[in-house]
Amino acid sequence: MVLRALVPWDGLAPAGSTLHVDVYDGVAAPPSDVDDVVCYVLPYPQVTAMPLITRMPRLRYLQTLYAGIDDVAPLVPAGATLCNGRGLHDASTAEHALGLILAAQRYLQTWVRNQDRHEWRQQYTASLADSTVVVVGYGSIGQALGRRLVACEATVVPVASRPREGVHGIAELPALLPTADIVVLVLPLTDSTDRLFGADSFALLRDGALVVNVGRGRVLDSEALLAEGGRIRAALDVTDPEPLPADHPLWTLPGAIITPHVAGGSATFYPRARRFVAEQLRRIVAGEQLHNVVLGPPIVAL
Amino acid sequence: MVLRALVPWDGLAPAGSTLHVDVYDGVAAPPSDVDDVVCYVLPYPQVTAMPLITRMPRLRYLQTLYAGIDDVAPLVPAGATLCNGRGLHDASTAEHALGLILAAQRYLQTWVRNQDRHEWRQQYTASLADSTVVVVGYGSIGQALGRRLVACEATVVPVASRPREGVHGIAELPALLPTADIVVLVLPLTDSTDRLFGADSFALLRDGALVVNVGRGRVLDSEALLAEGGRIRAALDVTDPEPLPADHPLWTLPGAIITPHVAGGSATFYPRARRFVAEQLRRIVAGEQLHNVVLGPPIVAL
Repeated sequence: MVLRALVPWDGLAPAGSTLHVDVYDGVAAPPSDVDDVVCYVLPYPQVTAMPLITRMPRLRYLQTLYAGIDDVAPLVPAGATLCNGRGLHDASTAEHALGLILAAQRYLQTWVRNQDRHEWRQQYTASLADSTVVVVGYGSIGQALGRRLVACEATVVPVASRPREGVHGIAELPALLPTADIVVLVLPLTDSTDRLFGADSFALLRDGALVVNVGRGRVLDSEALLAEGGRIRAALDVTDPEPLPADHPLWTLPGAIITPHVAGGSATFYPRARRFVAEQLRRIVAGEQLHNVVLGPPIVAL
Repeated sequence: MVLRALVPWDGLAPAGSTLHVDVYDGVAAPPSDVDDVVCYVLPYPQVTAMPLITRMPRLRYLQTLYAGIDDVAPLVPAGATLCNGRGLHDASTAEHALGLILAAQRYLQTWVRNQDRHEWRQQYTASLADSTVVVVGYGSIGQALGRRLVACEATVVPVASRPREGVHGIAELPALLPTADIVVLVLPLTDSTDRLFGADSFALLRDGALVVNVGRGRVLDSEALLAEGGRIRAALDVTDPEPLPADHPLWTLPGAIITPHVAGGSATFYPRARRFVAEQLRRIVAGEQLHNVVLGPPIVAL
């Protein structure tokens, strides 16, 4: 019988394979018959495409393009492999964090506002080069940011929940903060990161230090930041609360740049996701171990 | 007799040397007696500090922190060495170019304007990662930008006036422009670069391509850019004319970001200039060859 794969984009059939690859993008009507689907790559977004999983009795490989799997995991048939999309949003998030840092250091807000007034007014700016950047959270996004910062001739001080070779533990943060020109928070929200960065941390920072948050809004204590009254600059892609209400004082805090949780959502996601899926299919056909396996066997036998 | 050096910052006396190092920053009153000055590092800016050169009959080494030497060269005593500041502004300029690219790709103008209206409105953006960036002008600034772009996971296509290993010649530009998502101009103004980038070049670019200029304003034909009516995005640190008059249509061209020729002037210049001068003084004392010699002997005999 035919072995069929359902993927969100065309042009992904592995060379020299008998795997029959069809396209389902989650927007058009779903295929009527999915009995023989052995590989299913969920489209992005995936909500409308999830119920189809329950009609795939022969499914061996399910791929989500999200990092989180709480919604799809219960639908995976016994013995099938589930892989997630960890890493696909790293470049986008790291790049946005870098853009926020450069916008703050090189006074982009000032230039935008002056442009809107047709004003050519020069001013000497801060810089990223030669700055010390403490990156709190050094998983794949933090490391992607670290590589960009090093290329920008900044000194990177990596901090993670547990110390490891070349990476400081979170317990060392109070000793590191006084050395920082810039602090970047790239942390998930957990019990131990909730309002991790508050009044005590701000108090350790130099006047004019920049705090960037591209992790989760609640990792940074908004009230404590507001209490600094602009002594500390901030560039926030995530906020607490979120979305930020129109009357919230963070909008007008001096030295604050706010973007509406858009770090992960940029054009770079698609080509990455495409390459990733193409490589996963190649590995399946070649009988090789898959990337990002979170449930089931790492090698899929079709 | 005492051998004296005049430098713009303190703390620069080479260890274990008899060289007597004094500070003159170009702002305070100049020293009354400069007869015995053998090394003179001009402050930055240098205009007010240049006349002093004519009162230094024993001068052996003159250092300007600018790249250009047309103004100081005629003042150098016969047989003395003149060194320039080539490279000291590279990081600052490359970093600003990167900031302009990220601002354009990640819609920073939109977020600044929305913040001023207290509006949280999400939008999917373009990205730098996975983009193809044609860098026209691949000297030290172009290469500094190239390293940053590679770390940002972009594909860099270097172009210089003459082709060399790994760098395309300017004659190939028409063939390269249709492949570009982003074009960065990092060119000096010469007879052959004056309005180099005009209607013919724009016509070869894809809709929505981004053109960045951090070289000289006249390298890009402003009228030709305006004639595109926003089909091509632009991020300009230098313009033609410059400064841009308040009633100039470039201010309001859709998709244009304008900064007032501030790429080279950021905080990163000072530490670099300091390190550079310290190393030059060390080399003089050690009898080693100097960096950035543009006139006179490469080794200074005090």
